Amino acid sequence: MSWSVDRPMARQIQLTRRPEGALSADDFAARSVPIEPLVDGDYVVRNAWLSIDAATILRIGDLATGYLPPFALDSPMEGWAVGSVVESRSSRFQVGTPVLHNYGWRDHTVLSDRVTGWGAGEILDVGSGRSLRDYVGRLGTTGLTAWAGLVRVAAAKPGDVVYVSAGAGAVGGMVVQLAKARGHIVVASAGSADKVAYLIDELGADAAFSYRDGPVEAGLRAAAPDGIDVYFDNVGGTHLDAALQAMRAGGRVALCGAISTYAPDSTEPGVRNLFSAIAKGLTLKGFLARMYADDFDTARAEIAALVDAGTLRFPEVVSQGLDQAPAALLDLLHGGNIGKILVSLGI
Amino acid sequence: MSWSVDRPMARQIQLTRRPEGALSADDFAARSVPIEPLVDGDYVVRNAWLSIDAATILRIGDLATGYLPPFALDSPMEGWAVGSVVESRSSRFQVGTPVLHNYGWRDHTVLSDRVTGWGAGEILDVGSGRSLRDYVGRLGTTGLTAWAGLVRVAAAKPGDVVYVSAGAGAVGGMVVQLAKARGHIVVASAGSADKVAYLIDELGADAAFSYRDGPVEAGLRAAAPDGIDVYFDNVGGTHLDAALQAMRAGGRVALCGAISTYAPDSTEPGVRNLFSAIAKGLTLKGFLARMYADDFDTARAEIAALVDAGTLRFPEVVSQGLDQAPAALLDLLHGGNIGKILVSLGI
Repeated sequence: MSWSVDRPMARQIQLTRRPEGALSADDFAARSVPIEPLVDGDYVVRNAWLSIDAATILRIGDLATGYLPPFALDSPMEGWAVGSVVESRSSRFQVGTPVLHNYGWRDHTVLSDRVTGWGAGEILDVGSGRSLRDYVGRLGTTGLTAWAGLVRVAAAKPGDVVYVSAGAGAVGGMVVQLAKARGHIVVASAGSADKVAYLIDELGADAAFSYRDGPVEAGLRAAAPDGIDVYFDNVGGTHLDAALQAMRAGGRVALCGAISTYAPDSTEPGVRNLFSAIAKGLTLKGFLARMYADDFDTARAEIAALVDAGTLRFPEVVSQGLDQAPAALLDLLHGGNIGKILVSLGI
Repeated sequence: MSWSVDRPMARQIQLTRRPEGALSADDFAARSVPIEPLVDGDYVVRNAWLSIDAATILRIGDLATGYLPPFALDSPMEGWAVGSVVESRSSRFQVGTPVLHNYGWRDHTVLSDRVTGWGAGEILDVGSGRSLRDYVGRLGTTGLTAWAGLVRVAAAKPGDVVYVSAGAGAVGGMVVQLAKARGHIVVASAGSADKVAYLIDELGADAAFSYRDGPVEAGLRAAAPDGIDVYFDNVGGTHLDAALQAMRAGGRVALCGAISTYAPDSTEPGVRNLFSAIAKGLTLKGFLARMYADDFDTARAEIAALVDAGTLRFPEVVSQGLDQAPAALLDLLHGGNIGKILVSLGI
């Protein structure tokens, strides 16, 4: 596709039906639609990278979760993306400006500088060794979510034992490393022996276990025999139940994700150990990164310091081409990968 | 039974087996045991009133809940009681002193002034219109639990919509009235039309519904169509799920009890709506009154002001005689009564 004086086309991934059983690539279609002429304030971003995030799965269903609304059928999906402005009727977002926004899952996105706030276009600082790609990864929602959950939501204190589930995932891996850098004792879980080795050998977790080796409760007890003070929850369900059981008095849970419950065909049972929260005075606090937007500069500075020190591991699994985005999302749901899942649009 | 120079007997309720199915009065026995001669610091309280509390049910099972340990079989049970000292080798707890302690379910309790802290004997102020009985009720753990959960745990703010389950129970009724006195909009649920009428007509709740009239979620939506900010949870399970669904952004849950899950034969499903906590930034915080002991003077002063104003409703259901304590506990579990359940020892 070329960008010419003729009105160009934007290719986008659309949801074509709501799955009743397991999610499949057949629930999506890649379609091209014309880009309408711009009005004042509009600008077009050619997207370079898409972030693949678990929460997207929630918007594929039609449940009122209190999160963002379900995707409309036969309309472009949404998600974090970075790219550069290629056409503009905005004085702020001039051609060539690097931009982060939440209207990805398409190769070109039309935005307006009259729309502000969460998800709207944000001009990025890509100097000083920061790449565009960092902003759909370690300096984007992934890194900010990890920082906000650990530092602000769970308020991890010196000496705390911090447990992270899905520790080999993008957010989980950031939590492990931020927690280690902050001096906590870190326990992590994941779904394979390879991931457990990665958590210990690469990320520096003090202990790790695979939830596929036996009940989470037993794995956690072996990894943290004296209990835990903080649980960063990416999984929900039985992982949360096990963490509640292992918590010491006054412990805190940052509820970040519940991927075990997201799939339309999930059979994960409900949480049964909430009485532990009463008996031990525990706090469970849910959050989305955007609730801590006032802290993003602080968070990015702390993460950037680890990047600059060369100590931060942030592996990326990159799919090539927009049409691969649904398959990348299915990979995330099935948990086969280590690290951040991205789609490169090849520019 | 008389108190004489011969060593007297103490009658006590003992748990004789751990029920596998439904709890029954046959799981308990009333037994008399001799009171050993006192040593220095000891004193004997003749108990006048026993408090019947839901949490006692948890100690009848043998699960490690993180709460107080399970009751030993064929040993005296425990629970809040008030009475007066009838024999003493303590200089602080002299004969005639009114005392609150957690070693009830017996007619006489031997305590020691060398034991301090939670559950140990506390000398009561029964002047100024405060009766002994108040300290197993509105000025005891019941009232303190209601105050701590509403004020400190949920941190209810002016204008908040506060929802209370088991609103016609002892703690729930106190929450309704404290919340109304503090200017909140109050929604309550209970298990019968009589209780709903009591909540509205006697306690002043702004709206109330019976969970037996349909799904809790539907009842709550009708009673609080614009959602809730605070949920004081006495029930757990489906009530908690409905509250999570109804919560507005930034809402807070005080996890006080989960009576729907306490019975050994409970089939209450697990909690499934915790994702709502993520999407809406909700906080769930568990507590026991004793975690807020530093606030007890403040709490009692606020409750006492309502007592003195003559506006506080605190109905009591009184069983006569120690041997009725197991039946009173079963009544509490089955939810038939309005207000506080007490056992009078007839002195």
